[in-house]
Amino acid sequence: MRFPFIPREEKFFDLFEESARNLVRGAGLLAELIEKWENIEERVSEITELEHHGDNITHRIIAQLHATFITPIDREDIAQLADRMDDVMDLIEGAAVDMLIYEVKRPTERAQELADILVRTTSEVSAAIPRLRRRNQLNKIPEHCIEINRLENEADTVVRAALAELFHNQIDLADVIKWREIYDHMETATDRCEDIANVLEGVMIKRA
Amino acid sequence: MRFPFIPREEKFFDLFEESARNLVRGAGLLAELIEKWENIEERVSEITELEHHGDNITHRIIAQLHATFITPIDREDIAQLADRMDDVMDLIEGAAVDMLIYEVKRPTERAQELADILVRTTSEVSAAIPRLRRRNQLNKIPEHCIEINRLENEADTVVRAALAELFHNQIDLADVIKWREIYDHMETATDRCEDIANVLEGVMIKRA
Amino acid sequence: MRFPFIPREEKFFDLFEESARNLVRGAGLLAELIEKWENIEERVSEITELEHHGDNITHRIIAQLHATFITPIDREDIAQLADRMDDVMDLIEGAAVDMLIYEVKRPTERAQELADILVRTTSEVSAAIPRLRRRNQLNKIPEHCIEINRLENEADTVVRAALAELFHNQIDLADVIKWREIYDHMETATDRCEDIANVLEGVMIKRA
Repeated sequence: MRFPFIPREEKFFDLFEESARNLVRGAGLLAELIEKWENIEERVSEITELEHHGDNITHRIIAQLHATFITPIDREDIAQLADRMDDVMDLIEGAAVDMLIYEVKRPTERAQELADILVRTTSEVSAAIPRLRRRNQLNKIPEHCIEINRLENEADTVVRAALAELFHNQIDLADVIKWREIYDHMETATDRCEDIANVLEGVMIKRA
Repeated sequence: MRFPFIPREEKFFDLFEESARNLVRGAGLLAELIEKWENIEERVSEITELEHHGDNITHRIIAQLHATFITPIDREDIAQLADRMDDVMDLIEGAAVDMLIYEVKRPTERAQELADILVRTTSEVSAAIPRLRRRNQLNKIPEHCIEINRLENEADTVVRAALAELFHNQIDLADVIKWREIYDHMETATDRCEDIANVLEGVMIKRA
Repeated sequence: MRFPFIPREEKFFDLFEESARNLVRGAGLLAELIEKWENIEERVSEITELEHHGDNITHRIIAQLHATFITPIDREDIAQLADRMDDVMDLIEGAAVDMLIYEVKRPTERAQELADILVRTTSEVSAAIPRLRRRNQLNKIPEHCIEINRLENEADTVVRAALAELFHNQIDLADVIKWREIYDHMETATDRCEDIANVLEGVMIKRA
């Protein structure tokens, strides 16, 4: 017996993979924005476009969820994954937009470090997500999650050092306020990636 | 056969409507406080009273939830609606109290814009909630939700402009810190209204 | 018929009690750090050790959850309790670390008040948790929850007064930024204790 069409449920995996690739692109553009620091408005608006694209993916996942009677993974896990991936993109865009509207003169080295960590973290998310499709791939999920957790701790350490420096070397207090906000967006983005990792581990355990 | 008394489950809808009206009043008093900017302490304490009244409604909803075996909509949706409406009132009060304790001299125009958006957003919530009572009204819910999402985006745009202005025209950095906090309360209040809209849409789809 | 070994499910209660005792120790060390304000680095690293210990307990609870087919209380309540207790410890550590990295000169009296409230709040949590083990103890849970709610309101009032003072007596605006952050960690820790109380009340009602 042959199935002439892809089961609708496969669409969830397609959409999650599309969303994960979008995060990797967003983190990449953020890192590039910080590194090059030119054509700022244009680069930020590219990130905003990715954020709109991410919103669109999220809405398609939720619509698919409401239209599907039996889902390949638990409904609440699907909703959680969609929401947390949406958060990551919002936070990446928030960091980019804040640098623009706060008219920062030059990004700090710490911001560069955080953006690089975010590139690696979203890449791990993007590598982990396709493992959901096949039962024999599920046992590869933990290695990605361990790396995501490690990167989240690294981001934490960078932010603590960055905040200490901000106050210690403080020349302009307005800069302190601006950078605290920008660092906070980037650190929270890695926290949300860790939430994604936790959902993935839960799914793995339930399906094992 | 006739049912001589209103089923207990109707009470949930009564309480949600009472809570929504309370939000509209709270947002209205906040907008008035900002517009008039006189008798400040008295006006703020009126808003605090509404916040206490909101707490009371929330507790009655949760107590009713525990006392009811079969609920008219999913238990988790009831809890979510109650919590998010409670958050909106807390944030409205937070914005009012912060203006008082931070001893701001004059509210900004941006604060006025945000308060006006909040009046419109809570009014949409209050218009959407009664649609839950009757199956033939459920299909009116999306139009309210679309408007709530639009208003939330508007609030976002106002806050971003307001923050850019704060840093750009910055005279007193203490004012920057104070207004960022106050704007954040008001923007988060519109975010929570969007959460309410999402729950309402979910309820509609499940009952359709 | 006799059961020769402790059912595995009892382990959840053991782990929750261990976690609650860890919170009480953490809050105690924070209060001591603020009171004495000497050997700061050493004291903060002791709190960080407790935070790592807390992480370890959380992981054991989640692992136990995945390994247990029938749980003594609802799975989602177990996950919620574990997460919220983890949050409280993170926030206690966050307050301690911030005082160190921000190089604050002397803790404020308000910080002392908040740390003392946190000691009392975590002690109530720790007194309430063992009530979960036995059905005939469940009805003692509300008295702890009422006290936790009262303490959370007290913390709120202290923070509002503290923030008003910060801006009113403001000498150094960098101090305003630092203390707002530290107070926020401590207040949020009492909020998370209130979340724990709400979960405990829910469990009680469901098992009654």
